[in-house]
Amino acid sequence: MFFHKQELQFKAKPAKPDALFARRMQEVLGGQYGEITVAMQYGFQAWNSHEPGKYRDLLFGIGAEEFGHVEMLAIMIAQLLEKAPIEQSEAAAASDPVLGAVLGGMDVQHAIVAGAGARAVDSNGNPWQGSYITASGNLLADFTANANAEMQGRVQVARLYNMTDDHGVRELLSFLLARDTMHQNQWIAAAAELRAEGREDLPVPSNFPLSQEHRDVSYQYINFSDGAAAAEGSWASGPTPDGKGEFSYLDAPGTSAPMPPATQPDERYYGTTPKPNIVEKAAGVVKDKLSTK
Amino acid sequence: MFFHKQELQFKAKPAKPDALFARRMQEVLGGQYGEITVAMQYGFQAWNSHEPGKYRDLLFGIGAEEFGHVEMLAIMIAQLLEKAPIEQSEAAAASDPVLGAVLGGMDVQHAIVAGAGARAVDSNGNPWQGSYITASGNLLADFTANANAEMQGRVQVARLYNMTDDHGVRELLSFLLARDTMHQNQWIAAAAELRAEGREDLPVPSNFPLSQEHRDVSYQYINFSDGAAAAEGSWASGPTPDGKGEFSYLDAPGTSAPMPPATQPDERYYGTTPKPNIVEKAAGVVKDKLSTK
Amino acid sequence: MFFHKQELQFKAKPAKPDALFARRMQEVLGGQYGEITVAMQYGFQAWNSHEPGKYRDLLFGIGAEEFGHVEMLAIMIAQLLEKAPIEQSEAAAASDPVLGAVLGGMDVQHAIVAGAGARAVDSNGNPWQGSYITASGNLLADFTANANAEMQGRVQVARLYNMTDDHGVRELLSFLLARDTMHQNQWIAAAAELRAEGREDLPVPSNFPLSQEHRDVSYQYINFSDGAAAAEGSWASGPTPDGKGEFSYLDAPGTSAPMPPATQPDERYYGTTPKPNIVEKAAGVVKDKLSTK
Amino acid sequence: MFFHKQELQFKAKPAKPDALFARRMQEVLGGQYGEITVAMQYGFQAWNSHEPGKYRDLLFGIGAEEFGHVEMLAIMIAQLLEKAPIEQSEAAAASDPVLGAVLGGMDVQHAIVAGAGARAVDSNGNPWQGSYITASGNLLADFTANANAEMQGRVQVARLYNMTDDHGVRELLSFLLARDTMHQNQWIAAAAELRAEGREDLPVPSNFPLSQEHRDVSYQYINFSDGAAAAEGSWASGPTPDGKGEFSYLDAPGTSAPMPPATQPDERYYGTTPKPNIVEKAAGVVKDKLSTK
Amino acid sequence: MFFHKQELQFKAKPAKPDALFARRMQEVLGGQYGEITVAMQYGFQAWNSHEPGKYRDLLFGIGAEEFGHVEMLAIMIAQLLEKAPIEQSEAAAASDPVLGAVLGGMDVQHAIVAGAGARAVDSNGNPWQGSYITASGNLLADFTANANAEMQGRVQVARLYNMTDDHGVRELLSFLLARDTMHQNQWIAAAAELRAEGREDLPVPSNFPLSQEHRDVSYQYINFSDGAAAAEGSWASGPTPDGKGEFSYLDAPGTSAPMPPATQPDERYYGTTPKPNIVEKAAGVVKDKLSTK
Amino acid sequence: MFFHKQELQFKAKPAKPDALFARRMQEVLGGQYGEITVAMQYGFQAWNSHEPGKYRDLLFGIGAEEFGHVEMLAIMIAQLLEKAPIEQSEAAAASDPVLGAVLGGMDVQHAIVAGAGARAVDSNGNPWQGSYITASGNLLADFTANANAEMQGRVQVARLYNMTDDHGVRELLSFLLARDTMHQNQWIAAAAELRAEGREDLPVPSNFPLSQEHRDVSYQYINFSDGAAAAEGSWASGPTPDGKGEFSYLDAPGTSAPMPPATQPDERYYGTTPKPNIVEKAAGVVKDKLSTK
Repeated sequence: MFFHKQELQFKAKPAKPDALFARRMQEVLGGQYGEITVAMQYGFQAWNSHEPGKYRDLLFGIGAEEFGHVEMLAIMIAQLLEKAPIEQSEAAAASDPVLGAVLGGMDVQHAIVAGAGARAVDSNGNPWQGSYITASGNLLADFTANANAEMQGRVQVARLYNMTDDHGVRELLSFLLARDTMHQNQWIAAAAELRAEGREDLPVPSNFPLSQEHRDVSYQYINFSDGAAAAEGSWASGPTPDGKGEFSYLDAPGTSAPMPPATQPDERYYGTTPKPNIVEKAAGVVKDKLSTK
Repeated sequence: MFFHKQELQFKAKPAKPDALFARRMQEVLGGQYGEITVAMQYGFQAWNSHEPGKYRDLLFGIGAEEFGHVEMLAIMIAQLLEKAPIEQSEAAAASDPVLGAVLGGMDVQHAIVAGAGARAVDSNGNPWQGSYITASGNLLADFTANANAEMQGRVQVARLYNMTDDHGVRELLSFLLARDTMHQNQWIAAAAELRAEGREDLPVPSNFPLSQEHRDVSYQYINFSDGAAAAEGSWASGPTPDGKGEFSYLDAPGTSAPMPPATQPDERYYGTTPKPNIVEKAAGVVKDKLSTK
Repeated sequence: MFFHKQELQFKAKPAKPDALFARRMQEVLGGQYGEITVAMQYGFQAWNSHEPGKYRDLLFGIGAEEFGHVEMLAIMIAQLLEKAPIEQSEAAAASDPVLGAVLGGMDVQHAIVAGAGARAVDSNGNPWQGSYITASGNLLADFTANANAEMQGRVQVARLYNMTDDHGVRELLSFLLARDTMHQNQWIAAAAELRAEGREDLPVPSNFPLSQEHRDVSYQYINFSDGAAAAEGSWASGPTPDGKGEFSYLDAPGTSAPMPPATQPDERYYGTTPKPNIVEKAAGVVKDKLSTK
Repeated sequence: MFFHKQELQFKAKPAKPDALFARRMQEVLGGQYGEITVAMQYGFQAWNSHEPGKYRDLLFGIGAEEFGHVEMLAIMIAQLLEKAPIEQSEAAAASDPVLGAVLGGMDVQHAIVAGAGARAVDSNGNPWQGSYITASGNLLADFTANANAEMQGRVQVARLYNMTDDHGVRELLSFLLARDTMHQNQWIAAAAELRAEGREDLPVPSNFPLSQEHRDVSYQYINFSDGAAAAEGSWASGPTPDGKGEFSYLDAPGTSAPMPPATQPDERYYGTTPKPNIVEKAAGVVKDKLSTK
Repeated sequence: MFFHKQELQFKAKPAKPDALFARRMQEVLGGQYGEITVAMQYGFQAWNSHEPGKYRDLLFGIGAEEFGHVEMLAIMIAQLLEKAPIEQSEAAAASDPVLGAVLGGMDVQHAIVAGAGARAVDSNGNPWQGSYITASGNLLADFTANANAEMQGRVQVARLYNMTDDHGVRELLSFLLARDTMHQNQWIAAAAELRAEGREDLPVPSNFPLSQEHRDVSYQYINFSDGAAAAEGSWASGPTPDGKGEFSYLDAPGTSAPMPPATQPDERYYGTTPKPNIVEKAAGVVKDKLSTK
Repeated sequence: MFFHKQELQFKAKPAKPDALFARRMQEVLGGQYGEITVAMQYGFQAWNSHEPGKYRDLLFGIGAEEFGHVEMLAIMIAQLLEKAPIEQSEAAAASDPVLGAVLGGMDVQHAIVAGAGARAVDSNGNPWQGSYITASGNLLADFTANANAEMQGRVQVARLYNMTDDHGVRELLSFLLARDTMHQNQWIAAAAELRAEGREDLPVPSNFPLSQEHRDVSYQYINFSDGAAAAEGSWASGPTPDGKGEFSYLDAPGTSAPMPPATQPDERYYGTTPKPNIVEKAAGVVKDKLSTK
C-alpha cells in the first residue's frame, strides 16, 4: 500500500516562470531515465522479487521515495509554466523576439493539452512507456540496470543544472543530484553485496551451467573493425572480472560457418522462390524492358 | 563503413522447424535487450564518442560483431518457420491438438506479414524501437548500460535454452551465451579501466562539482517503506563505493517542505480555478442534484 | 511524498497458478484503463490543479489508493506465474495438449523477460504509455474522463471475473469491482458538485464566451448517415442538458463551403504542382506506355 | 459505405499562412482527442454495436461528420503551411528574428516529410494511434468516453482560439466549438436516455450481479492522503448517484492483508532466490569489497 | 465531407464464428498495410495535393472506398467473435483441447477490452499508428508508395485466404483480392501517366537539379558484400530506367574519406573527453582492480 | 557477418556547427524513410529470402552500404552539435535572439540525453521503430517498397539541401542524392527483371489463382467521391498494366449488400444488447431527466 502526504521531500519552487525550461525538465520526469522510470522499475522489481528481506526492503524503501520525486518535478514544472504565453501565432512571434524564442522552445502540449500543467512525457513530448523499465528477477542484472539508470539520470540532471540560473530550480536539482549520488552508490554496493554473499555472481546468471556454453569463445575479444587500439585494453589480456578465465585478443574471427541454404516455405505464402521450369529470358530482353522512358 | 560477408560467425541451423520457438527467439533479436539493441547502441556510442583510441575501437569492434548476431538470429528464425502452418482457423485447431497449440503460440505476423520470415520485433510482436538504446556521451554511464544489456541478454538466452531441446538451436544459444559472458566481462573491465585511469569516476558524472549538490543527503539511505531489513545492507553504513563518504540510515525523511501554492495560470487556459465571486450553494442543494436516478 | 507499507489493502492470493489468466490480468494492471492509468491520471490531475481543497484532496486520496492496486495486481500476477512452464517448444506442446494450450495463451515475455514476474504492459504485451492519461486542468472534463476510466475498468474486471473460477482471484476481483463502483459514483458526484457550485458547467469549458462560437449549429443534430432512427432520441429535440438551448434535427447538412484552392508551396518542396509550360502528351501515348508487360 | 463530396461542411481558409499555428492545430487533428480519434471511435462503436436503431444510427450519423472535420482541419493546415520557410539553418535564423521564431516553433516534419502538408500526428509530432479510441460494447461506458472526448476536444479548441487572431482560422474554430457543444450535450443526453430506458445503469456494467462484489467497500471513500477536505465533498456522505447506497468516509483503510509469501519460480528462470546452503560471508568482508576505489 | 450509407459494398458474413481467424483478420484492418492505412493515406495525399483534377479526384474516389473496406472488415470480425469463449483460464483450456487452442490463438483484448468487437490494431494487438502512412506531396513517390501498399495488402489477403475454409470469409477475401488487383494496376497506371505527361519523372524528385548531385556515383552499383552474382543483374550494366545514364558495377567502394576528428563538446555536457593532464596509471594497476572477485 | 572499417564512404564534415540543422538531419537518419530503415529493410529481406543468387546478393550488397550511410549521418550530426548551447532557459533566449532561435529549433534531447550526440530518432524526436520496415518474402512487392523508400528518401534529402548553405553539409547531401538516384533506378530495374524473367508478375502475388478472386471488379474504377475528372485517367479505360484486363469506370458502386444483423455476444461480456422485457419509459420522462441543470 502507498500513502500520500501533502508535503514535499524538498522545496520545489522556481524563482520565476520559464516555459522553455519546463519542457527541458520533462526529460527527468517522463523520459527514458526520468523519475517515473525509476519509481516503476523499483516497484516491479520488488513485486517480482523471490524473497523477503533486505534487498526487497531496499527496493520498496527507495521506490516510494522516487514516486515523491515524480511529484516534486511535476509541481515544479507546473509552476514554471504558470505564465506560459497564450498567443502563439507567427504574428505574435514576429512582434517580440523573446516571445518568439519561447514559442519555439516550449512544449506546445503544455499549453494546448495540459493548460499549463506537467505531463507524463519526455522533453520531446514522447509519452513515457512501460518498456523503459527492467525487472528480470535476477537481482545482479537488475541492480546493474538500476545503477545505470541513476548514472544516466544524474548526467541529465547535471546538464539541466547548466541550462538555467534560476536559484529555485537549481536548489531542487542540487537535491536530486545528491540523491542520485546516493542511489548510484547504493546499487553498486548492493550488487557487490550480492556477489560477496555468493548469492549471484558473474557472468549473470551465474547459476546457468558454464559447461553448456561454448567456453572457447567466452573470454575472446574478437575485433570486427580495423582499429587496433582495443588490443591495449584490460579486456584484451589478463584475468577476467568474473575470476574464471583469461582475456585473449583476436584480430578477426577465427572461424566461420557457411550460410545455411535459403528456406523454401509453403508456396501459399507467395514468397519469391526458385522455379526450375521457368525459361530464363535473355538478358537483352530484360534490358529492353527497363529503358521504357 | 560496413562490409558484409556471406558467412556466419557460427552455425545457425535448427534440427527441425518450430514456429513456437521462432516466436520466443524474436525476443533476443528484436526485444529491449536483443541483438539489434546492442548493435545499434555500440554504434551510436562510437559515433558520438569524443576521442579516438581504445574505447572507440572497442565499441566499433564489438558493434560490428553484434550486427552479425542479428543476422544469425534472423536466419535461424526463418528456418524455424520454414514449415509454419498455413491453415490457421478454429476448425484447423480443433482437428489437431498439436496444430492447435502451434496456432496459439506462434507469432501470427510471422505467417501473415513476413511469409515465414523473421521480423524486427520482440516475442510479443512489439516493433524494435530507438528508445531501447543508450548513448549519453559519458562512457562510465554508458559502459554500465552495456554491462546491464549483456546481463539481461544472457539471462534471456539462458531461459530460451531451457525452452527447447533442439540440438541446433541449443548450439547457437551456447555460442551466444559464451559471447555474452565475454561482453559482460569486457564492459565491466572497461568501466574499471576508466576509473583506474582517472578518466571517469563515481558518482557519474564525476566532473560535476560536488559542491553544487546537497551533500548532506548524498549518502543517506532514507526509508520510505516500513521494512527494517534494509538497514542491514552495506548501503546503510560504512564507506561508499565512490570513496567519498560514509553511508548512513534514516528510518524516514528527516525534513520536508510545504507544498507550494497551487498555480493560477491565465484564465484563457480554461482550467478550474477558485473564483471569489461565486456564491457557494448549500450542500443540501448539491446533494439533491446527485441523487437524480 | 509517498510512503509504502508492506501490507495489501486486500488479500491477493490465487488458489493455484494459472499462466493463461496471468496474461489476461495484465490488462487491468498495465492496459489503457488499468490501475497504472488511474493512479498516474489522478496524480497528474492533482499536481496540475489550480487550488487546494476538497477536489485536490480527493485526487490525492484516491490516487495513492490506486498505486496500491497496482501493487496488488502485480503480486497476484507473479503468483499466478509461479509455475509457468519452462519448456515451450513445439515438441513440448505436442506431447501435452494442456501444456500446448498454456504455451499458446500465456504471455511469453512473462517467462523470457520477467522470469515469471509481472510487467508494465497490457494483455497483448503493449507497454503502458503516458498517452493513456488525461489531465487538462479543467476539472469537469477531467472528472468525466475519470468516470469513464472507472467504467471501462469495471467492465474489464467483470469480464475477467467470468474467465476464471479460481476462488482467490475472484476474491480480489470482487474487491476491485466494489472499489470501481465507489469510484464511478464518486467522480459522477464530484462532477455534479462542480456544476452545482457554479464552478464549472456545460458546455466544457463553460467560461469560454458562447458568443464566440457559431451558435446556429450548437444544438443541431446533423445526420451524415442514412439511418433515420436517431431522430427519435432525446438528442434530436427538446431541451439540452446544458440548459441553454433546444435540440433540433437535420437530415443532412444544411449548408456547405467550396473546397479552397489547392496550395502552391515553394517549388523547392518538390511537390507535384501544375506547370503551365508542360506540353501534355496525347492520351494514346500514355496508354501505350502502360501496357509494357 | 462512405461517400465523399468535394465540399466542406464549413469554410476553412486562413487569412494568411502561419506555420507556427499549423503545428498547434495538429493537436485537434491527430492528437489524443483530435478529430481522427472521435471519427474512428464512433465508427468502431457502431460496427461493434449489438443492436440496430437510434443509438447505432447516432454513432453512424456523427461519425461520418467527424471524418469531414478531419478533412477541414487537414486542408486548413495545408494552407497555413503554404509559405513555410525553406531555409532552416542557424544562419537563416540568425539573420532574421522572425524567421528564427518560426523555425523554432514549426513542426519540421511539415516541411521535410510532407512538403508543406498536414500529417496524422499531434502538435508534438507523435503519430496518431489506435490506442486513443475506446469501444467496449457497453454503451453507457462508451457514451461517457465520448462525452469526455468532446469536452477535452472543446477545451483544446478554445485554447487554440486564443493563440491566433487570424480571422479565417477563428471562424473555423468557432464552428468546431459549436459542434463540440452539440456533441457534448448529445452524448450526455444519450447516456441519460440509456439509464432512463433501463437499458444500462450505474454502476457500469449494471448487469453484473452486485452480490458478487464486496459491497462493504462499494460506497466508502477511503483516504490514502493526509488532506481532510475531501470529507466535505458530496462523495463522502449522502446518497450515491447510482441510487443504491450511501457514501461513507474513512480517514484511512480500515483493514489490510499481509503481503503474500514471495514466489519461488523454477530455478531455470535464473531469478535470485534464497539458497539455504549459502554460508553468509561476514559483513566486514562485504564492506571491504565495496571500497575498491 | 463524408456521408455514410448503412449498406456494405459487398457481403461480409461468415459461415460460423472463429475467434482465431478474427485475430488474424485484424492484420488487414489495422496493420501496417491494412485498410485503415490506405484509407488515411489516400485522404492525406488528397488533402495535401497541389492541384485539382484527375489525380486528386482519383485519391478522393478511392479513399472513400477504403473507409468502406475498414467497415466491412470490422463488421466481419465482430461476427467471427460472436461466440468468443468466456472462460479463459488454464483449467478451462485443460478440459477441452479445442478450447485450449482457441484461447491460445485468439486476441485476448477482443474479449477483455472490446467485448467481442473489432479493434483498431493489427494481428498482434499493436495499435494502428499514423506513421504507417505516406503523403510527401510528390505524386510519383506517393503513387509508388500506394502501389506497394496495395501489393503488400494483397499478399496478406492471399495468405489469409489459405488460413480459412469458411465460405463467407473467403467470399469477402475474394472481393478484396479483386479490388487490390484493381488498385495495384491503377497506381501503376497513374505513376506511368505522371511520367508520360512529363509531370514527374525519375529520379524522384525530378525537378531537383541533377547538377547538384555527385553524378559520378549516380549509376554505380557498389558491392559492400562478397556475393558476386549481383553483377549479373540489369542494375549492373546497361541503360538506367530513368533514361539518363548507364549502370556500372564496382566490386567495392572506389574511394573513401578519413573519419573526421572526434567532437569536443562543452565539458558541461559531461561526456568523456581526453584530458591531457591525467597521469595514466600503469596497466598492472588497472588489471589488479579488475580481478576483484 | 559484418565488418567495420574506420573510414567513411564519403567525407562528412560541416563547415560550421548548426544545432538547428542537426535536428532536421535526424529525419534522414532515424525517420520513417531514413538510412536506418533502408539498412534494416534490405537486411531482413536478404535474411528472409528464399534463394541465393543475384537478388539476395543485391540486397546484401546494398544493405551494408546503407549501414555505412547511417554512420556518415550520425557523425555529421555529432559535428553539427559540437557547439550546441548549454544555457537554454527563457532568460538566455531573451538576451540573444539568435540563441533564442536555436533554442527553439534544436532537438533538446540532443543536449540533455546525448550530450551533443546523434540519436536513433527522427526530426521530431520519435524513436526509430521496426514497423518502418517491410520484408514480405515476395520480391516484387518488396522491391516496390524499396523503390518507394528511396524516392521518399531522396525527396527529403533534396528538401534538406535547400535548408542549408553549409558547403560541407551540402557535399554530403549531394553524395546521398546521387546514391538515392542509383538505388531508385536499381530497384525499378530489379522489379522489371523479376517480371521479365517470369519470376513474379502483376498483380502481386501473381501465383495466387486469379480464378479465386471476384474478377468482375478486378479492373473497375469505382468512384466514391463526386469528382468526375478521374474518368479521364489511364486507370479508367484501356488495357491494364498487368496485361490481363481492361479498365472500366463506374460513377458509383453498382451493387451493395445489406448490413448483417448486429452481433449478440454472450451477455457476460456486458455489452449493451436489446432486452425484450424492458418497459420503455415514456419519452417525456427521459427528457425530464436530461434537463437536470
